[in-house]
Amino acid sequence: MKRRDFFKNTTLATAGATLLPTFGFTHSIDKKAGKTAKNIIFLVSDGMSTGTLNMANLLLHRKEGRKSHWVSLYEENKAIRALMDTASANSLVTDSGAASSAWGGGVRVNNGSINVNPDGSSNKPILQKFKAVGKAVGCVTTVPITHATPAGFCIASKSRDDQEGIARQYLSLRFDVMMGGGTEFFTAEKRKDKADLFQEYARQGYGVFRSRKEMMNASTSAGAPILGVFHENGLPYSLDRVQDKQLKEQVPTLAEMTSHAIKHLKNNKKGFVLQVEAGKVDWAAHANDIGGLLYDQIAFDDAIGVALDFADKDKETLVIITTDHGNANPGLYSNEKAEENFDKIQKFRYTNDWILTGISRDSSLKQVVERVEEAQSFAITTDEAQVLLKHIKALDETGVYNPKKLPFSQLAEIQYNYTSVGWGSIHHSADYVELAMYGPGSELLKPFVKNIELHDIMLKACGIIA
Amino acid sequence: MKRRDFFKNTTLATAGATLLPTFGFTHSIDKKAGKTAKNIIFLVSDGMSTGTLNMANLLLHRKEGRKSHWVSLYEENKAIRALMDTASANSLVTDSGAASSAWGGGVRVNNGSINVNPDGSSNKPILQKFKAVGKAVGCVTTVPITHATPAGFCIASKSRDDQEGIARQYLSLRFDVMMGGGTEFFTAEKRKDKADLFQEYARQGYGVFRSRKEMMNASTSAGAPILGVFHENGLPYSLDRVQDKQLKEQVPTLAEMTSHAIKHLKNNKKGFVLQVEAGKVDWAAHANDIGGLLYDQIAFDDAIGVALDFADKDKETLVIITTDHGNANPGLYSNEKAEENFDKIQKFRYTNDWILTGISRDSSLKQVVERVEEAQSFAITTDEAQVLLKHIKALDETGVYNPKKLPFSQLAEIQYNYTSVGWGSIHHSADYVELAMYGPGSELLKPFVKNIELHDIMLKACGIIA
Repeated sequence: MKRRDFFKNTTLATAGATLLPTFGFTHSIDKKAGKTAKNIIFLVSDGMSTGTLNMANLLLHRKEGRKSHWVSLYEENKAIRALMDTASANSLVTDSGAASSAWGGGVRVNNGSINVNPDGSSNKPILQKFKAVGKAVGCVTTVPITHATPAGFCIASKSRDDQEGIARQYLSLRFDVMMGGGTEFFTAEKRKDKADLFQEYARQGYGVFRSRKEMMNASTSAGAPILGVFHENGLPYSLDRVQDKQLKEQVPTLAEMTSHAIKHLKNNKKGFVLQVEAGKVDWAAHANDIGGLLYDQIAFDDAIGVALDFADKDKETLVIITTDHGNANPGLYSNEKAEENFDKIQKFRYTNDWILTGISRDSSLKQVVERVEEAQSFAITTDEAQVLLKHIKALDETGVYNPKKLPFSQLAEIQYNYTSVGWGSIHHSADYVELAMYGPGSELLKPFVKNIELHDIMLKACGIIA
Repeated sequence: MKRRDFFKNTTLATAGATLLPTFGFTHSIDKKAGKTAKNIIFLVSDGMSTGTLNMANLLLHRKEGRKSHWVSLYEENKAIRALMDTASANSLVTDSGAASSAWGGGVRVNNGSINVNPDGSSNKPILQKFKAVGKAVGCVTTVPITHATPAGFCIASKSRDDQEGIARQYLSLRFDVMMGGGTEFFTAEKRKDKADLFQEYARQGYGVFRSRKEMMNASTSAGAPILGVFHENGLPYSLDRVQDKQLKEQVPTLAEMTSHAIKHLKNNKKGFVLQVEAGKVDWAAHANDIGGLLYDQIAFDDAIGVALDFADKDKETLVIITTDHGNANPGLYSNEKAEENFDKIQKFRYTNDWILTGISRDSSLKQVVERVEEAQSFAITTDEAQVLLKHIKALDETGVYNPKKLPFSQLAEIQYNYTSVGWGSIHHSADYVELAMYGPGSELLKPFVKNIELHDIMLKACGIIA
């Protein structure tokens, strides 16, 4: 390729200008033939506000003496960064379905829909495009594999809530790796249509895994597509999982799923595209659950490590690391004891989800105090326990099993006094978000992008469009 | 300069690696002789969380159909960005004194101090270093000119609270431009030592301005240093200022001060270094005052526009745009009416500060509702007004005049129901923050920096250290 043509056809000329504005530098840049990206690993920490990235790095550094892979990538001057505008078609504040559709379909759709436009037409999801040109494709996530973020890369659906329909849509796509939670959308007992999708997937030649052990023992060289579903709905939080021998045997980590997926996909001669989602970071933010949030963000960072290790050796892989939107904008706030308070999170053993789902209307104040202490390694006062118990007693009979009615906000407010971590809401935010790229194709990134622009950047990086 | 030597002596080689990681690109970069920065304009929106930058841009775009200068700089692919770690010596969450000292002195000090180390030794502030090599230097701010952020570039003081002492320290420095608020730290009536500093400044040859008119009418070509102090303490919020003819005549905008400062400084043959601070963005965040916050952030952006206009023509100016720490992490949160709610802020006429300082224990509920409506263009309910009035009635006699005791948080909580803007706290946060550089020297910036690194980057950009 002549240099002239290259500058015409790509934005690399502009990228050069980014680094070196018009201040009298001369520079020439060549792109060697064949250095388009063969593979893409697209990692999403769902609902990650700035403070989440910040506090996870602080926690890791203070607890284990190491920086996160994400921040290290910046410190080592290896990544290209952008600020991303995450709006959807009908709101400044996107949901995860519209956000993933923006990337997956290249078009902003309304919140609640997956790659379906207001007029009913639909946009072809990016993994279908990559599959059509011979790439192996897949998704792994810590929430149901039928959830909004993987779905936005795979299918079109009028409603993101139709997870049973999405589970069926996946079947005919024969994508190479689909792993996460969501058993309830595949089993005959739970599905409205009483179809046993696990059986149908197996009948059509999929390798079907229902436990970590099955995944770990499976051959990765076989060409058959795989479906791994490890938990009824979302996978357990990382913090709770490590305390429970049975969960550890049943459920793989996001890093393990990522590693297994890469092993399975990398043998494809024409390369692969993999989406990796830390979906429960978003759920923890909705619940103002700091232990759930930070340890799942760290588990996400472990998956980043797996991706970067592969990319470093492979040298033909574009790694994209981002989030789809902010959520709850948590922060470590000023206090004379801010450091000491923040360090308490190092000793957390269970999430707030574990605390609150274990308290019932029959619990005593003493039991509440003990359960919180078991989880956090420090006690709250009986007055504070009374606040929680009052809310739980006010729930209806089924309420205890509905996390949305549990006093998550009240517990987070109590914890603020001990951890100095505060929250702005229990909802998604309109914040611009962090985006990093590493590897071939990353030169296409400008310092400010709209979420929809990633669609073409991925296709261009692989040379599928000019 | 030989290219070889250049690569040895600067980090530009690394900067090249940032843009183009090791994926088979070849690249060569030359820096023409003499393209060090002659001038630096360092702009600080104090206490600006991610959501502040985001919402100010959204507000401008939706109200006036234009993007902020800051975001446009990214969209036009002209800036180099970094994420900045803002910690102080003794806390993950810095105050503005330690933050400005990190930049100004190149060393992390404890919160509360200005360029003074825990052992009592002090670090030479950067504007003294620049002055010593012949550059003209100055600061403009919307808070007292003796406040932490300008002080950190100018002087060393064991306590940031000693603003009277800082006002005196400035006198002997003879810095070329010092403008902002803080009359009370200069007048004989208010100072403990009863010294009339305005008179002393004038006697020593300073041009002393006490009003916008005096500033606007002053000759900018005179070589004498200038002191401009326009209000008793912090300058009024931008939103309140434009509603008040007298304030508009008395107090210049931050952009006007910036423009005047540049005109005064640019004649110096050896260049200049100017700090520009939007200090009341931080005060508004502490008060969860969305009108105060966003319109002062926009006023900051106007000052960015002035700086960029100058830099574009001058071509020898490094423009640095950042904040010293997050504060209160505000966000526009998900809601079916999020856009409609957010758009209400376009019609705000006064800040929450104006609302609450105008309510007394003798106010009626009706008066409270009317005052809020006058400020926001929409009414709150009498129940909501009752919440505010209850808090104000509970204040002691002097409380009404102490903003910290006023029910700012309660008003912000009420507004959340109307604007969809929420807040995480009333304190600084540990969040990593946004940093942008434009112009010669910006190639020294890596994607992740500690606040202290900016000190040497500024000196290197001007060729003062290698």
